[in-house]
Amino acid sequence: MSERRPKDLEPVAGNGLLHRRLFLKGGAAVLGAGSLGLMTAAPAKDLPPWMGAPGRPLSGYGSRSPYEDHVRRRLLAATGADGAGGSWTPLEALEGMITPNPLHFERHHSGIPDIDPDRHRLLIHGMVDRALFFDMDALSRYPMVSRIQFIECSGNSYLAGLPRQPINDTCGVLHGLVSCSEWTGVPLSILLDEAGVDPDAGWIMAEGADAAAMNRSVPLAKAMDDALLAVYQNGERLRPEQGYPLRLFLPGYEGNMSIKWLRRIKVTAAPSMTREETSKYTDLLPDGRSLIFTYPMDVKSVITSPSPGLVLKGPGLYQISGMAWSGRGRIARVEVSADGGATWGEAALCEPVLDKAVTRFRMAWRWNGAETAILSRAVDETGAVQPTREAIIAAKGRKFAYHYNGIQAWGIDSEGQVANVYA
Amino acid sequence: MSERRPKDLEPVAGNGLLHRRLFLKGGAAVLGAGSLGLMTAAPAKDLPPWMGAPGRPLSGYGSRSPYEDHVRRRLLAATGADGAGGSWTPLEALEGMITPNPLHFERHHSGIPDIDPDRHRLLIHGMVDRALFFDMDALSRYPMVSRIQFIECSGNSYLAGLPRQPINDTCGVLHGLVSCSEWTGVPLSILLDEAGVDPDAGWIMAEGADAAAMNRSVPLAKAMDDALLAVYQNGERLRPEQGYPLRLFLPGYEGNMSIKWLRRIKVTAAPSMTREETSKYTDLLPDGRSLIFTYPMDVKSVITSPSPGLVLKGPGLYQISGMAWSGRGRIARVEVSADGGATWGEAALCEPVLDKAVTRFRMAWRWNGAETAILSRAVDETGAVQPTREAIIAAKGRKFAYHYNGIQAWGIDSEGQVANVYA
Repeated sequence: MSERRPKDLEPVAGNGLLHRRLFLKGGAAVLGAGSLGLMTAAPAKDLPPWMGAPGRPLSGYGSRSPYEDHVRRRLLAATGADGAGGSWTPLEALEGMITPNPLHFERHHSGIPDIDPDRHRLLIHGMVDRALFFDMDALSRYPMVSRIQFIECSGNSYLAGLPRQPINDTCGVLHGLVSCSEWTGVPLSILLDEAGVDPDAGWIMAEGADAAAMNRSVPLAKAMDDALLAVYQNGERLRPEQGYPLRLFLPGYEGNMSIKWLRRIKVTAAPSMTREETSKYTDLLPDGRSLIFTYPMDVKSVITSPSPGLVLKGPGLYQISGMAWSGRGRIARVEVSADGGATWGEAALCEPVLDKAVTRFRMAWRWNGAETAILSRAVDETGAVQPTREAIIAAKGRKFAYHYNGIQAWGIDSEGQVANVYA
Repeated sequence: MSERRPKDLEPVAGNGLLHRRLFLKGGAAVLGAGSLGLMTAAPAKDLPPWMGAPGRPLSGYGSRSPYEDHVRRRLLAATGADGAGGSWTPLEALEGMITPNPLHFERHHSGIPDIDPDRHRLLIHGMVDRALFFDMDALSRYPMVSRIQFIECSGNSYLAGLPRQPINDTCGVLHGLVSCSEWTGVPLSILLDEAGVDPDAGWIMAEGADAAAMNRSVPLAKAMDDALLAVYQNGERLRPEQGYPLRLFLPGYEGNMSIKWLRRIKVTAAPSMTREETSKYTDLLPDGRSLIFTYPMDVKSVITSPSPGLVLKGPGLYQISGMAWSGRGRIARVEVSADGGATWGEAALCEPVLDKAVTRFRMAWRWNGAETAILSRAVDETGAVQPTREAIIAAKGRKFAYHYNGIQAWGIDSEGQVANVYA
């Protein structure tokens, strides 16, 4: 392997972080005659075997390469409750902003119902002028919109920062209860307007058609703002795990409120105080009180590569790649540190940077082979800055399990092994 | 079914086309107390059977609902050539901008090779200072970028407009050799700079690792501009049909040039005049001469719903939804006609409108139940206007098979049946 030194790669922070212009159009020019030096040795001169005969034929619905079979969601089934549990998106194996549908994280309260779309109905009732029923065919005739937005479980990342000792597992297991898709559906406001909402109403209650009849209260203002009745996900009809044939989608709000298999919306004056907003999905504070109705997911980021399970193969140039998102709007900036948080450089954000979507950030890093820790810190357009683990624990203690958004540090040892560390 | 008349839906063109503000944020307000009147009758009062017991469990890699199994690519295998052929994306069943990976169109010249990514190499050679080899591991360390962009076979839509009598098939079969994904990979310019391109070079030749060793010439200017060495598609590694583990991606250019299973790039002074740019992929003109190297795909649009196979169920409100794209840049405007092209109204474009990406357009339409034809016409940011079928045939005859981008008319009869018509 040839290793030439690039001459024009400008450091922007300590321990080898390079300027983001390498990721911008025309960025290659900054290399000049320099070389990143990552080429490999020539293979044997024989043609590869797969060029010797015609390959596999066309198919109606494709599948991935068998060499990628190891890229799977990790499952955690709850004990004592049929069909309850979650599965994590393997973030460390993915790139870009979109999560492919088969790898979108799951969280079910009583398994995945097998719904016949021709028999599914949505009822809108309660404090309205007239109750309305819709079947999927009727909904398909209403004006639809499409938006690329994330959904995140409120319990995401709790495992990464709140235990007293750092748990070592993949980035996906620690942070993979977040996924990002293009959602297409009918704005809920259109149907609520059609039903005629009572001026004294202030909330809705949304209920799913699973065996748990999972339900949550949502402020009417959110329902009338950007709530969608989602029918499509990344171009195709919703996957069963994501609520086929119809889910509520509440951009930026904790995932469990985006009720899957949506069958009923009741307009109410006050919150319904359902099981999932009293026994769960509240945040216990050190003084014994609980926060309730903590809906928006706060600004967060995580480096997906390098991350635990991926090994750096010797000193030299690496791409640092990660995801940032905020339930309160667009990502404004992501900073990366390669010296344990002592100095920070600004990462390149991949366009388009969209409202309440995952934003991919990237940075070039020349690793010198010494032990260190790499971190990322996101800032959203409201000015909110992703906090440190220490600041969160100081403010909220460690008894809560939802809405943890602390800065993640990955330790890298001199062998290039990556681990979750409390830096 | 209740049918109330909306009061505030403003017509913008003949035969019931309504203003696009219905699709914009706050659009519901224009309905006022009016109703779109598409609700359905109440179902029986019993709970649906799928609420009676816990549903299916979590899974590592999800699959779609069995009720969606009919949504498949349509296959056309070429006779006399193993593994050669194409499959069309079922556009009429999809929504939004993203094509899910299992439904991305295919076009193979000798089937799909089953490549071991650990044994795959990319060679860059020819008129360079030094030949370079890369394995997938080395490539993963270079700076990457992600872009949502379409890829379209140059032969797309030929069947829709050039036969003397209109062929009646689905929108997917007539126009489905186009798909749109988020592609992530390394800018080719970075690797060419590293190899050191000879100042006298003007072209590259790219070659695939399939049994056809499919190869094409690409102007060096395009290679240095926005060409990608794509590794990921919609977040996950490329699908085998799309070139796993590595493909060239040339935004806006005819699809066959985005060489799949990329194994070799040779820098040359002149085009290599390969089989696929001499015996094929040229456009025969009426005077017997052929156009060659006709790379960018021109501005095009098509209404995907309603389209053949989908039936309008009686007079009333419908959403017209379609796709527009241009290999020369962003879509500037899409116009829709519901009276056979006599009058046109402007459709709502779904944000974000991206460079060389599919843009979803939508329009509300109140069908009066009478026979008519609906059409769409796209304009891109260069000012190029999608031409009529008649204008194309007058200029280029009917002997060519590539780069057909005529306006598509769908006829609708009084029963609500939709068909390809030459309006």
